[in-house]
Amino acid sequence: MSLDQTPRRRRRRKQENHNKVTGCQAPVRQLVNPFRPIEILSEDQLESVHQASLTILRDTGIDFFLPEACDRLKKAGAIVEPGSTRVRFDPHMVESFIGLAPEVVEVHARNPERSFKLGERYISFGNVSSPPNVSDTINGRRSGNHIDFRNFLRLSQYYNIITFIGGYGVEPTDWHPSIRHLKATQDFIKFTDKAYHAYSLGRQRNLDVIEMTRIARGLDQAQMQSQTSLMTVINSNSPLQLDKVMLEGIIEMSSRNQLVILTPFTLAGAMAPITLAGALALQNAEALAGLIFTQVVKPGAPFVYGGFTSNVDMHSGSPAFGTPEYMKTAVAGGQLARRYKLPYRSSNVCAANAVDSQSAYESVFSLWGAVMGGANLVKHAAGWMEGGLCASFEKFVIDIDNLQMLASFFKPIRVDEDELAIKTIAEVGPGGHFFATEHTKARYRDAFYAPIISDWRNFETWQEAGSPTAVDKARDVFQQVLAGYEPPPLDQAIAEELDEFVERRIREGGVKTDF
Amino acid sequence: MSLDQTPRRRRRRKQENHNKVTGCQAPVRQLVNPFRPIEILSEDQLESVHQASLTILRDTGIDFFLPEACDRLKKAGAIVEPGSTRVRFDPHMVESFIGLAPEVVEVHARNPERSFKLGERYISFGNVSSPPNVSDTINGRRSGNHIDFRNFLRLSQYYNIITFIGGYGVEPTDWHPSIRHLKATQDFIKFTDKAYHAYSLGRQRNLDVIEMTRIARGLDQAQMQSQTSLMTVINSNSPLQLDKVMLEGIIEMSSRNQLVILTPFTLAGAMAPITLAGALALQNAEALAGLIFTQVVKPGAPFVYGGFTSNVDMHSGSPAFGTPEYMKTAVAGGQLARRYKLPYRSSNVCAANAVDSQSAYESVFSLWGAVMGGANLVKHAAGWMEGGLCASFEKFVIDIDNLQMLASFFKPIRVDEDELAIKTIAEVGPGGHFFATEHTKARYRDAFYAPIISDWRNFETWQEAGSPTAVDKARDVFQQVLAGYEPPPLDQAIAEELDEFVERRIREGGVKTDF
Repeated sequence: MSLDQTPRRRRRRKQENHNKVTGCQAPVRQLVNPFRPIEILSEDQLESVHQASLTILRDTGIDFFLPEACDRLKKAGAIVEPGSTRVRFDPHMVESFIGLAPEVVEVHARNPERSFKLGERYISFGNVSSPPNVSDTINGRRSGNHIDFRNFLRLSQYYNIITFIGGYGVEPTDWHPSIRHLKATQDFIKFTDKAYHAYSLGRQRNLDVIEMTRIARGLDQAQMQSQTSLMTVINSNSPLQLDKVMLEGIIEMSSRNQLVILTPFTLAGAMAPITLAGALALQNAEALAGLIFTQVVKPGAPFVYGGFTSNVDMHSGSPAFGTPEYMKTAVAGGQLARRYKLPYRSSNVCAANAVDSQSAYESVFSLWGAVMGGANLVKHAAGWMEGGLCASFEKFVIDIDNLQMLASFFKPIRVDEDELAIKTIAEVGPGGHFFATEHTKARYRDAFYAPIISDWRNFETWQEAGSPTAVDKARDVFQQVLAGYEPPPLDQAIAEELDEFVERRIREGGVKTDF
Repeated sequence: MSLDQTPRRRRRRKQENHNKVTGCQAPVRQLVNPFRPIEILSEDQLESVHQASLTILRDTGIDFFLPEACDRLKKAGAIVEPGSTRVRFDPHMVESFIGLAPEVVEVHARNPERSFKLGERYISFGNVSSPPNVSDTINGRRSGNHIDFRNFLRLSQYYNIITFIGGYGVEPTDWHPSIRHLKATQDFIKFTDKAYHAYSLGRQRNLDVIEMTRIARGLDQAQMQSQTSLMTVINSNSPLQLDKVMLEGIIEMSSRNQLVILTPFTLAGAMAPITLAGALALQNAEALAGLIFTQVVKPGAPFVYGGFTSNVDMHSGSPAFGTPEYMKTAVAGGQLARRYKLPYRSSNVCAANAVDSQSAYESVFSLWGAVMGGANLVKHAAGWMEGGLCASFEKFVIDIDNLQMLASFFKPIRVDEDELAIKTIAEVGPGGHFFATEHTKARYRDAFYAPIISDWRNFETWQEAGSPTAVDKARDVFQQVLAGYEPPPLDQAIAEELDEFVERRIREGGVKTDF
């Protein structure tokens, strides 16, 4: 075997050939957004929103639909009438809970190279999560199922720009809800080596997923409780309600130092006031209530401030995404999160029904709000369509290209003698060309971001090639990535322990449902 | 006639019905970008780029292909060998010309309501300019002609978000170049009441357009020379060349206080170094050389710093737009312009061949670079495709929607008691709905931006409606706007004087060409 034929080299060759068809791939690394977040609220306005939230929490209060939660909050100083679900908070109590949660959180993946940090200028991207439908231009639009669910996992594992598995790429509705969390989490662990999400849909489901994560990471119980390895999105049921399963999720997750991403779904004009200031005040009140409860459960439990405020079409009531209002609240949400020194979550969302210009501009506007607003965690970063009702394979790949472009935008411009190229400019001189210079030759391979989707050929060449649009190219790419997918290594003993756990829990009926 | 039937009311009704099909329309106003520009270069790096430009101007110099220009520069202190076109500048000389051009420029339109300011945080948008081809999904792609040229003028006049006419929406190639500028400018004045662009394609063409503009605005010669009413883009022929017609353009425009937008076309890897720092140093050297010449011609002449640096596909040499590199140089270009206290020009560009996701994400990324980079003047803001080789009617309308969204993004969030809606939140309470509240009813008509293109219907309703994509909607809209177009009023005497001028100049043969 010649030196050139080592397995590593062969693997690299294979990888290079694969990349020719599927486009470039970002390296595995912790992304840092170098840009200072922009601001849309003045200091005074920010304070007014904060004060309004305190007033809402004091005078109106929030329904906590779990007696255990009401009891714990009452003990911690909240005002709860006997037998009531309504919890009110004195402003001093609220203020006393700000600053307990960590400013930076490290989320551990089973592959340590895939662990990532949240907070400061760190930014991480997760795949689309939870749509009931899935589509591609080969088989059309269909209900979520475990085959497509697995394919989204494969794509999410393949692309390094996807930092974490934010949930089910599409709901595997062919798996019964009593066992869905077991089978889906088993797949998370087998198909990917990234950190992932646990749906808070009842205490036992959280406990099952926490246990599976402990097994996957090869930790004992104490280690599991000291390392954040799992995240859950807690949606308040706006306005001003936290449901039983969400509160159970906070209890099981926060008590074990697992990550809670509290995201009020405050649609201005529907579940929130039609004014952006009012919608933000409501979002903020709900986020602070959630923050307090996590810190009551365990002081110092990791917490992410989630912003998801958007507007609705006032004629139809349909939610809208990637709108100017969405961008504004994404930026304002970041200011609120930073006021509380909390990591900030935003999203890459659109309302489009087709993978067309609308899906692209709404998505990039969403990313604009998220990135310039200083988001640390961007959910639904690849594949989201139809306001979350559908996941698209083609949109997934187009979004990946856009995220990789942002990662390239984040790389600083190097400025030194070599890069300023004064000598080369002098050599080339007026009217010359830089193409053939040594300066260019030494750099041309990786000077610029090489896109997956963008077609830069001239019109005639492009037309001769069959006039492929972005969707056509994305269709080819996602199929090729799926064909070339290889699962990440998993320790045999861990795999067996995991399988035994899942088999046992399925034999036990999983989590009983009434359907 | 009842009160309800006044002509004004009837006109408003007609307008409202028209708007139902063509979507909302931004009001006529001077847009202000409220966001502090982001920065990609540190202060030190910015200074290094500046110093590199000074070195290039001192050691390599620039070719000025017009003896008159060389003579004037030599008199002003530049180093020019006898009989040579090469002009070198001492750094002290360069520094002494910085700060002479105005920080804010008012550009006067023939309709004073359409005049606009450049500089500080003002931002203005112009239509796509100069593509040789035009396309729509009805008649396909074709060569530029005066019918399509006029239709772009109609669209550009109709949409208030288009501040100025940046050039020919598409080249009217069916008008001979000897008379094209006369007929096209005549149409600028008759089809629109906005300020517009004069191509610098030889001294006489500039003089003709300046005279037509004087007539259109009803000014005498002295007034015309004291009010900036016309703009010209001066492209340096990178690297380091300024062609004869461009220099003649500067002489005729700057001497009369008309606006020069100096834009080096520095494609990294082709006409500029492959490194972004090198491409920026070259761009900056060329911009400073142009600045100096305008100020030699007339100290205080209005000048805009243009940034157009992008990268090329290193395999094919094709230019790329809306790339991460493009965004980075757009942001850095803004920093350079502000260092010299000059208004900044950027663009809304893409390389896509189809009005698909690529055309949208590349465009929004371009706008991201422009807006967050602090651009005051955004050229090609609506309709640009194929790296500038084609103008698309559908893309024009989609871009208009995106620009209007940005204008809405720029509107501050109001924060006061009414807007914070604490009382309404208390009234609605946990689990309620805001749709039917008085607070919502009083605001629902214009609380949110109403898009022209974005389709927010759910999938089923959208599918029943025939699954229209963004392009389908844009096709309907541009046709309806064209059908409803009404030319702006023009004083009869001015129209006659203009027609006489154009007829006379055409009789004279316009500007003689050798073809």
